[in-house]
Amino acid sequence: MSEESKISNAVIKRLPRYRRYLNELKRKGVSKISSREFSELIGYTASQIRQDFNNFGGFGQQGYGYNVEDLYEEINNILGLDREYKMVIVGAGNLGQAIANHNYYHRSGFVVDSLFDVNPKIIGLKINDISVRDYEDLPKYIQENKVDIGIICTTKDVAQEAANKMVAGGINGIWNFAPIDLEVPEFVSVENVQLSEGLHSLAYYINQNK
Amino acid sequence: MSEESKISNAVIKRLPRYRRYLNELKRKGVSKISSREFSELIGYTASQIRQDFNNFGGFGQQGYGYNVEDLYEEINNILGLDREYKMVIVGAGNLGQAIANHNYYHRSGFVVDSLFDVNPKIIGLKINDISVRDYEDLPKYIQENKVDIGIICTTKDVAQEAANKMVAGGINGIWNFAPIDLEVPEFVSVENVQLSEGLHSLAYYINQNK
Repeated sequence: MSEESKISNAVIKRLPRYRRYLNELKRKGVSKISSREFSELIGYTASQIRQDFNNFGGFGQQGYGYNVEDLYEEINNILGLDREYKMVIVGAGNLGQAIANHNYYHRSGFVVDSLFDVNPKIIGLKINDISVRDYEDLPKYIQENKVDIGIICTTKDVAQEAANKMVAGGINGIWNFAPIDLEVPEFVSVENVQLSEGLHSLAYYINQNK
Repeated sequence: MSEESKISNAVIKRLPRYRRYLNELKRKGVSKISSREFSELIGYTASQIRQDFNNFGGFGQQGYGYNVEDLYEEINNILGLDREYKMVIVGAGNLGQAIANHNYYHRSGFVVDSLFDVNPKIIGLKINDISVRDYEDLPKYIQENKVDIGIICTTKDVAQEAANKMVAGGINGIWNFAPIDLEVPEFVSVENVQLSEGLHSLAYYINQNK
């Protein structure tokens, strides 16, 4: 892992996007692609792409390009997508339920194990076959069930408390949908979902298209 | 607009992120920042930041840095966030309702005007004071009410049809949450929400933290 851990955050943030496009190419039966062709597809410069791929071995061959399948597998391995992750959702409101209902996550190895909420009317129910449990039991449940990822779908005002409970249970990865910067220990990673950024780019393009 | 339209897609995609961090700095009372300090905050290289800002005038002063307020306003103007956008959501399921309930969009000038669905049980209801209307009426409603942005919160199999109806009504910006690549005319912009990419980065960091 010593070599991989040198990969910069900026590259890591781009890997999922590379992976998605490679998956698309695989599905279309494309077996190799040059950095120039990939550049046109994904919107990064060819030199950026070559530089990124050099970080983890660089599979390109002069005059041949990259092997799509190999590159996809390598990125999968680097990201750690060759294993399963157990997830819990805190907040069984609309957003929490939308994620629980989204079978994509299950198929791709990110398994929603349970939802947690404070509302006694829904504790004990099942959503997409996933149990809604009592928020009070969160740290204990995480610990006993070796949960990998906590998803925060609460309002802003209780998000930090939910994060604290997750960390207390031993989680070191939080996917945060609440619009707040969480304070967590250094060994805990947080991915904040910034939905509005896409909307802001869209505003720009709408004005250009007029 | 001729100068602005030369800005590359990659830069446009970074602007909302710059904007978010500048807004944060503003709220903290920071009035100026160097490209080096900004680099540490946002995770892009200082030279990337200078290059990006040069695209639209470059407000940095040698030995002084960037004026946070000016830069924020300029990015707002470039993105077109100095006006309001009227939006409709197609699909009033969990995800559509979650967006309709999210008052952030309203506060920041992206106003959800209506939800559209095929389910007669919810047509006519209100969610967060927003009417649920009949999907059949979508193109006519868009046309009559000058809707700017269509948000697709349907399942994969009807997303393309929803996009077609939006385009027929005259929309030229689509925010797509369905996991499918939409086919639209060239004058229509689509922003696909790729939630799983954040989850994939998170997987990497979890493994590094072990």
